[in-house]
Amino acid sequence: MELVPGNTLITDTAEQGRALAIMLARKTVAAIQTDAETRQQLRAGYATNPDSLTMATHVVAIEFATVAAANNYWRG
Amino acid sequence: MELVPGNTLITDTAEQGRALAIMLARKTVAAIQTDAETRQQLRAGYATNPDSLTMATHVVAIEFATVAAANNYWRG
Amino acid sequence: MELVPGNTLITDTAEQGRALAIMLARKTVAAIQTDAETRQQLRAGYATNPDSLTMATHVVAIEFATVAAANNYWRG
Amino acid sequence: MELVPGNTLITDTAEQGRALAIMLARKTVAAIQTDAETRQQLRAGYATNPDSLTMATHVVAIEFATVAAANNYWRG
Amino acid sequence: MELVPGNTLITDTAEQGRALAIMLARKTVAAIQTDAETRQQLRAGYATNPDSLTMATHVVAIEFATVAAANNYWRG
Amino acid sequence: MELVPGNTLITDTAEQGRALAIMLARKTVAAIQTDAETRQQLRAGYATNPDSLTMATHVVAIEFATVAAANNYWRG
Repeated sequence: MELVPGNTLITDTAEQGRALAIMLARKTVAAIQTDAETRQQLRAGYATNPDSLTMATHVVAIEFATVAAANNYWRG
Repeated sequence: MELVPGNTLITDTAEQGRALAIMLARKTVAAIQTDAETRQQLRAGYATNPDSLTMATHVVAIEFATVAAANNYWRG
Repeated sequence: MELVPGNTLITDTAEQGRALAIMLARKTVAAIQTDAETRQQLRAGYATNPDSLTMATHVVAIEFATVAAANNYWRG
Repeated sequence: MELVPGNTLITDTAEQGRALAIMLARKTVAAIQTDAETRQQLRAGYATNPDSLTMATHVVAIEFATVAAANNYWRG
Repeated sequence: MELVPGNTLITDTAEQGRALAIMLARKTVAAIQTDAETRQQLRAGYATNPDSLTMATHVVAIEFATVAAANNYWRG
Repeated sequence: MELVPGNTLITDTAEQGRALAIMLARKTVAAIQTDAETRQQLRAGYATNPDSLTMATHVVAIEFATVAAANNYWRG
């Protein structure tokens, strides 16, 4: 299973880095719950629960912190 | 979908950096729950629940840590 | 709306930095729940719930980490 | 109200730094819930709830990360 | 009990670093709940609960932040 | 009460650093809930609850981040 798309944290832009952060979180979910259909069902439930959404947003924020540091914050 | 407004973490001031942190969190929510009407309904509920508010505030704090580091804390 | 009091993370002392961290968290709450009366009501409830208090304390700890780094930990 | 005992994050030892981290968390609680008697009552409840204890431990871990960085990890 | 597979945080690639982050989290669970059968039973329950999955994903994100920093983000 | 075993964050190996991270978390719990028998009872409950286990694992991950930084990630 691929956990880091492209096997790198380096991206050209902050926008791409943000997309990578979301992907990293989703890949972890897939590594823990390996059944795609089950993931699809769970997704319907949590996307309409505000706290569940905030919790997911929290994880993306943490992944992004790592990706942003890896890219020196795209200060370029 | 745009995840990082302006595609940069660099802002002129700490105030603008804080506003960006809030935007980053909201953009992630929109990326997960893509239906704007559903997001609007959820918003009404969580803004009157103290723990939900604290959870959202927590995410903003983490996003801001990244934005602040990217800007060398606007030390001037 | 002002999100960062004084528009700077720099403070003279650790004590002032801590007070700023608390302010930052409160300003975010005010940005999400813009009605002051509602915030006042919510405040009464969460200040007597131990887990709610811990959650709020958690956010302050994260904000303070950023403020402390911005000030080079007031190492003097 | 004093939020940072001694108004400094610098301590002689890691042990003292850990004690400071606990104090910082408690001072924040006191800043939010200013009534000492109420705090005492809440304390009885959360100290016998395992998740409440873990949440409190979590906050101390974050405060300690800041104190440890401030002291260059007491590397000597 | 082994807590850090191979007793090192250094990996060749980001992909391997991500796998290590997942392993670190699982080893901690095993250190706290030492009965393998109990862990297996708990696993069935939490993998079908969206918030439990998000919480686990959160821990992996934090472990990965450490592993990524240890490896200078595999910048090459 | 001893909060940091050996009063240092420096360890020879990553494995020892991980063990220290677990110890730091446990010492904080003991500092908050000072009755050993109560702690023992709470332990039985939370070790069979998957979310409680994840929460505890989360704290260890944060403590480990600090210990790992203190040791320059045992890069050798």
